Amino acid sequence: MTLRTALSQCLGLTVPILSAPMAGVAGGALAAAVSRAGGLGLIGGGYGDREWLSRELDIAADAGVGVGVGFISWALARDPDLLTMALERRPRAVFLAFGDIGPYASRIANAGVPRIVQVQTVAGAKIAVSSGAQIIVAQGTEAGGHGGERATMALVPAVVDVVGDIPVIAAGGIGDGRGLAAALMLGAAGVLCGTAFYACRESLAHPKAKDAALGASGDRTVRGRVFDIIRGHDWPEPWMVRTLENGFYRRWATDPEMLERDIARQRQIYLAAQVRGDIDTAAVIVGEAIDLVHEVESAATVVVRIASEAEKRLRMSHTDAEW
Amino acid sequence: MTLRTALSQCLGLTVPILSAPMAGVAGGALAAAVSRAGGLGLIGGGYGDREWLSRELDIAADAGVGVGVGFISWALARDPDLLTMALERRPRAVFLAFGDIGPYASRIANAGVPRIVQVQTVAGAKIAVSSGAQIIVAQGTEAGGHGGERATMALVPAVVDVVGDIPVIAAGGIGDGRGLAAALMLGAAGVLCGTAFYACRESLAHPKAKDAALGASGDRTVRGRVFDIIRGHDWPEPWMVRTLENGFYRRWATDPEMLERDIARQRQIYLAAQVRGDIDTAAVIVGEAIDLVHEVESAATVVVRIASEAEKRLRMSHTDAEW
Repeated sequence: MTLRTALSQCLGLTVPILSAPMAGVAGGALAAAVSRAGGLGLIGGGYGDREWLSRELDIAADAGVGVGVGFISWALARDPDLLTMALERRPRAVFLAFGDIGPYASRIANAGVPRIVQVQTVAGAKIAVSSGAQIIVAQGTEAGGHGGERATMALVPAVVDVVGDIPVIAAGGIGDGRGLAAALMLGAAGVLCGTAFYACRESLAHPKAKDAALGASGDRTVRGRVFDIIRGHDWPEPWMVRTLENGFYRRWATDPEMLERDIARQRQIYLAAQVRGDIDTAAVIVGEAIDLVHEVESAATVVVRIASEAEKRLRMSHTDAEW
Repeated sequence: MTLRTALSQCLGLTVPILSAPMAGVAGGALAAAVSRAGGLGLIGGGYGDREWLSRELDIAADAGVGVGVGFISWALARDPDLLTMALERRPRAVFLAFGDIGPYASRIANAGVPRIVQVQTVAGAKIAVSSGAQIIVAQGTEAGGHGGERATMALVPAVVDVVGDIPVIAAGGIGDGRGLAAALMLGAAGVLCGTAFYACRESLAHPKAKDAALGASGDRTVRGRVFDIIRGHDWPEPWMVRTLENGFYRRWATDPEMLERDIARQRQIYLAAQVRGDIDTAAVIVGEAIDLVHEVESAATVVVRIASEAEKRLRMSHTDAEW
C-alpha cells in the first residue's frame, strides 16, 4: 500500500486523510463518512454548543463507525464538561487547537484517547509536544477558518524537524491528491482537509454557500476579523478567520469599530442572511484550496479521489517519465 | 534520471532548480555557480542599477557559464534600456515579475531568449500567459522579498490547472529536497529558491546578515512596507517585502507615517546600518524557509543537496516502506 504512514497504525487509518472539525459544518454524517472511507472524520466541537455536539455524536454513533472530536481550546475552557461528554462517547481521537492544551491532556490520556494538537508555528509545535500532544497538525495560513500566518510549504518540514518521532499532519491548501502526495514528500504522515469537504454532500454548510465555494477562486479569500465580530466570537490574538471575500467583508474590513458600534442591528441582518444563504453577507469559510474543488460529491468520493490521485503521482516517481 | 522535467529541455537544466534574482544579493558569482551545478542562476537586475548589473553580468561571463537575468517590471519601465543591455549578453532566460510584461515580451522573443514570468495569483497566471510568458513561476507568500498573499501549496496546482502546457515553477517556502519533491508532486516542473541561497558563500548579502539568517526561525519573518519606505523603493500595491522581523521593523511598522516624516535622518541611520551589517536595523530579506537552512555552503553544494534529497524522497515512494 503506497499510502501507509505512521498514522495508519496510531489512528487506525487505511488512507492518511482527516477531515477538519469545521464548526457547524463538520457534523456526525460527514465525520462518519470520512471514517468509513478509511480516513478519520472529526466532528467540529466549535464554540461549545452542547446540544449540537451531542446530536452530531449520536449521528456518528448511529452510523456505527468511530469518529474524532475537535475543540477550540479557548472555547472549551469556558465549558470543560464538553470534553467529558465527548470522552464518554469513546472518540477515536480528540483534536485541540488555538490555545493551551495542557489542562486537558491528562484527562484525554486517562481515557486512552489519542491527542491531536494543531499548531501554526514551529514554536507552537515545541510547546504542544511538551504539553502532551501525540500527533501534531501543522496548519498553514492558506487554510480556511481560523489560523495563523505561516504557510504550509515551509512550516511542515520545519515542524517535522523539531518534534522527533511524533507524526505530523499537514493542513492548509491541500485540496486534492497532488497536495497529499506533496505533504508526504514534506515529511508529513498525512493531511487534514477542510475546504475539500466543505461543499461535499454530508457537509452542513448552506447549499448556497456550497455553490458559492465551488464557483470561487482561491485568489478571493481573505483572513480577517469581520466575521468573528459579527458572530460574537471573541477570538484572541493572533488568530483570524479565512473566508471568501464578500460584500459584507469589504464594507467592514477597513472600519471594524463602526461595525461594533452598530452590532445589534448588523447581527440581526447577518443572522438572517445566514439562514437564507445570502453569501454576499454570510461568511463562506473556505481556504485557498477552493480552486481545486469542483463539484458536490459524497465525502467518501472525496477521500477516495484524493487518495488515488496521490497514489498515482507517487507511483509516477518510479518511472523515468518526465515530470 | 529522477529529476527530468519540462524544464530540462526548455531551459537546458540537469536539475530543476533556479536561484532567485535577489536584488543586490544574487550577483554573477552566485548565478554562475548555480548554473554550473546544473540549475539556472538568475542575476538580480533589481531596481535598475546599470553599473551593478553590468559588472555582475561580466562576472558571470568570465565564469564561462550561461545565466539568466531577473527584472522588477515596474523598475524596468523607468529604464527600458537595461533590457537591451541584458539581451546583448545573450542570457539563458529573462525573468520578469511584479507588473505588466507585455511591453517587453516581443523584444525578448525576438532575441530568442526564454521568457519566465513570476505571478502570485491564478488570475495573474492567466494574464502572464496571454502576455507571452513561456514559463510561469507561481510564487507563494512564504517567499522572502517581495510577493503577494497566496501560499505555495494551493497556488501551484491551481496555476498548473489554468496554464495548459506551460511549465510552472514553484517558489516560496522551498528550502530543501523535501520542498523540491513536494513541488514536483504538486505538478510543478521545478523550483525557484531564494532563501536557500541567501546565506551561501557566493551571495552578496552582508556576512552578518547571513549569520542572522542562519540563526533565525521562519516564525519570525514579516511581510510589510517599512523596508521599502526606508530604502526609497516606491513599490506599488499590493506587493510588500518579507524579511526577518527586527528592532527597526517593530519600531515603525505600526506608524509608517512617522517614519516618512523623519525619512532623511532615518535613511542615513539605515544606510549606515546596512554597511556595517547591523541587522537589528538593516533588513535581512529571507522567507519562511529559513528554518531549513543551517550553514554557509557553496551554491553548488546547495543545488546538489536539494536535488539529491529530492531524488531520495521520490525513490522512497517506490517502496512499501512506511512514510
